[in-house]
Amino acid sequence: MLKKLKHAVYEANMELPRRGLVTYTWGNVSGIDRDKGLVVIKPSGVEYEDLSPDQLVVLDLEGHVVEGDLNPSSDTKTHLALYRAFPQLGGIVHTHSPHAVAWAQAGEDIPCYGTTHADYFYGPVPCARSLTHAEVDEDYELNTGLVIVQTLKERGINPLHVPGIVCRNHGPFTWGKDAAQAVYHAVVLEEVARMAMYTRLVNPGAPSAPQYVQDKHFLRKHGPNAYYGQARHKELDEDDD
Amino acid sequence: MLKKLKHAVYEANMELPRRGLVTYTWGNVSGIDRDKGLVVIKPSGVEYEDLSPDQLVVLDLEGHVVEGDLNPSSDTKTHLALYRAFPQLGGIVHTHSPHAVAWAQAGEDIPCYGTTHADYFYGPVPCARSLTHAEVDEDYELNTGLVIVQTLKERGINPLHVPGIVCRNHGPFTWGKDAAQAVYHAVVLEEVARMAMYTRLVNPGAPSAPQYVQDKHFLRKHGPNAYYGQARHKELDEDDD
Amino acid sequence: MLKKLKHAVYEANMELPRRGLVTYTWGNVSGIDRDKGLVVIKPSGVEYEDLSPDQLVVLDLEGHVVEGDLNPSSDTKTHLALYRAFPQLGGIVHTHSPHAVAWAQAGEDIPCYGTTHADYFYGPVPCARSLTHAEVDEDYELNTGLVIVQTLKERGINPLHVPGIVCRNHGPFTWGKDAAQAVYHAVVLEEVARMAMYTRLVNPGAPSAPQYVQDKHFLRKHGPNAYYGQARHKELDEDDD
Amino acid sequence: MLKKLKHAVYEANMELPRRGLVTYTWGNVSGIDRDKGLVVIKPSGVEYEDLSPDQLVVLDLEGHVVEGDLNPSSDTKTHLALYRAFPQLGGIVHTHSPHAVAWAQAGEDIPCYGTTHADYFYGPVPCARSLTHAEVDEDYELNTGLVIVQTLKERGINPLHVPGIVCRNHGPFTWGKDAAQAVYHAVVLEEVARMAMYTRLVNPGAPSAPQYVQDKHFLRKHGPNAYYGQARHKELDEDDD
Repeated sequence: MLKKLKHAVYEANMELPRRGLVTYTWGNVSGIDRDKGLVVIKPSGVEYEDLSPDQLVVLDLEGHVVEGDLNPSSDTKTHLALYRAFPQLGGIVHTHSPHAVAWAQAGEDIPCYGTTHADYFYGPVPCARSLTHAEVDEDYELNTGLVIVQTLKERGINPLHVPGIVCRNHGPFTWGKDAAQAVYHAVVLEEVARMAMYTRLVNPGAPSAPQYVQDKHFLRKHGPNAYYGQARHKELDEDDD
Repeated sequence: MLKKLKHAVYEANMELPRRGLVTYTWGNVSGIDRDKGLVVIKPSGVEYEDLSPDQLVVLDLEGHVVEGDLNPSSDTKTHLALYRAFPQLGGIVHTHSPHAVAWAQAGEDIPCYGTTHADYFYGPVPCARSLTHAEVDEDYELNTGLVIVQTLKERGINPLHVPGIVCRNHGPFTWGKDAAQAVYHAVVLEEVARMAMYTRLVNPGAPSAPQYVQDKHFLRKHGPNAYYGQARHKELDEDDD
Repeated sequence: MLKKLKHAVYEANMELPRRGLVTYTWGNVSGIDRDKGLVVIKPSGVEYEDLSPDQLVVLDLEGHVVEGDLNPSSDTKTHLALYRAFPQLGGIVHTHSPHAVAWAQAGEDIPCYGTTHADYFYGPVPCARSLTHAEVDEDYELNTGLVIVQTLKERGINPLHVPGIVCRNHGPFTWGKDAAQAVYHAVVLEEVARMAMYTRLVNPGAPSAPQYVQDKHFLRKHGPNAYYGQARHKELDEDDD
Repeated sequence: MLKKLKHAVYEANMELPRRGLVTYTWGNVSGIDRDKGLVVIKPSGVEYEDLSPDQLVVLDLEGHVVEGDLNPSSDTKTHLALYRAFPQLGGIVHTHSPHAVAWAQAGEDIPCYGTTHADYFYGPVPCARSLTHAEVDEDYELNTGLVIVQTLKERGINPLHVPGIVCRNHGPFTWGKDAAQAVYHAVVLEEVARMAMYTRLVNPGAPSAPQYVQDKHFLRKHGPNAYYGQARHKELDEDDD
């Protein structure tokens, strides 16, 4: 069942330790088959070196386990809330990569200081607010997802134009058209977060890049007039809008 | 004698360089057989690449060497003081991992800025006070252990809920139910210390995570209502209380 | 066609990931055959692990593709502007190496704090100004090159004496007598940028090295009286002037 | 000639890139045969991957080349000045390791913030002053050595008790009883410099460790009452005084 998607989600999960983004089990990747309405996600608390594709858990969008003997990632409800809210998403990643966590713990948006950021994230990477005590008690993981959705909607953000967020006191979530692209964005977000921290260390008052530079770089890589890369890459990166 | 424990302590010691936690000989791991009242610990000043299981030293809880030709770690009395004070401990680790050392040298508790920390340490990681001149002269290593014990007791901390500490002007000690878990906590502490330093660099005035978030994350992984991981993991992580 | 140059440019490109200077496709190297007036450059958006010498693109100095099936690097016009302005250049590199990017994003020259810097860069590494909105709209990549040229000319800099620059809100460009030396300077610039950031962290008010120390170190390695290295190295490093 | 010493100096040189202390050719190691009064040192500007033992240069203490076809390290006169001033030294290392360079460029002593430092360096690691313009013009490398000697003598430092220094605007020199120990101290100095920088980042006002803690740790490892390590190690670390 969903053999191809499972393989893709497995490979995307294994890319996290290869890229140095996770310590122990601190990360998880999911992917979705939109036609079947089924999500494949990493099981909870399994070490990456022990992970095999058949251990992945299959759930429907309401969280009912359809296949798999293990408990799904403890962050599953967060993933599902994002898939339900944004039909454009094909893959989602959560990590505790250290520089992105720093911005989450600092409670600040990651400013767009330059073109490395602007090539992938159109505007600052938002820092979603802390959950209230009531939200934590009611359903922590579900409400984590709903606060991400609220943040993007209130700011009028197309999630494919800002393919990630940092959750206050917690860490980053990224997404993409599929699991592989979501991991790609997790790597980029960690690099961007690192460069932004370094920028502040050199010049605490550094301003964001001018808006027209941000526009230029994002649109050089995305949308109908993109001219970065080869045709096959453009297709991969292109948005639907 | 204690063949299985020696193997476990040897493997736990070798995990330190694999995880990048030690330079040269700057670390040591011990484990205890509570039934026999015997502790196995790394010999002093032996390079990890030269270490073999039969070089480990066996001592009783008063520090009498029961087996082994080499001198035990110079920090042995610190380990023994912790084992005597806290019967819950099955393994102890000391390293000079650089970010944990930074907090020790800065003389500050590591604040709980987020969930990476809260998943493992319930509240701030304490910074134990410097020893007095008299304490250093009397018995440096023993008193290092006694000051750790004093710090935990004065703050009313269950050592399995806060499985590590940084000692002022010195560095981290961590512990767990066995030597492997103590090393696991040494890795986590270094990551948590790193993220906390980065958090301060981004926002020097960042507050700690709300208490209810700290409660939620710690209890998600520990105690009777834990739901992170699979059954076998929960058992591993579960506290006795 | 240009088989030897292609090989050299290919090897120089592959050195970027080996030296840890690039994430994904965030970098490109070119080299020029001055006799033929032809430039060889990395294709756009191709992963380094997939790159082969025959994928490199050959262009004339006006940007007409002479050989190659793939689109050239999106930064090609920047490279060409530099080759046209400075006949001394034989190779050019662009990366997003994180510490050099930090200075670019901070909008500051990298001060010459010491001899590591002075051995390769004679004076501060300039931070070129942001492009204006009009410059971005007109021809972003061409004008990036022209602003670099303007910066060097206005400051009276011989590009072989200061073989690199950071472009505001963007990142570093470096160059040299050939593609290999341009990559060498990219590695040095990242190290120098890192050391300069660390220097500020230790002492935010640290002054630049005295001018006579900068003179001594640069001239120890460059020019007719250089005495660093062996004869074959001196020849490699020697300037034409 | 000096086959054993050449082998030791070669191995010590090769340890620098293995330990991540050098980029390209930014480092050199020498060793001395005190009976013969001959020094073996790395040739200038040779890449570590190309270095072989027979390329090492042999000089007398006045700098006359006794054996070797290549130019000796450009820092040779600095090494020789140290060997002449301090008969206790058997090996010397120079690197541009980045955290030690940061303190050199910041122009500050590295404070003894804790026991990692105190185990090897008794008191702060001095930052030697910049050379004057006249000293640079007269004989840069010789005077670099003489300023190191002056700094140690004025402060009344036994060079085996403080086996390293950072030279203002330049970088670290370390030494030991032989070339291997000098490299060991270069690794330790870089770690100590890193931890000290991190300490300042966490708490810019952090005080040095109490003197009695510094005394305890240094004497635990050095001198007649040392009890760290095994007998063979103690012998290795023991001072002559």
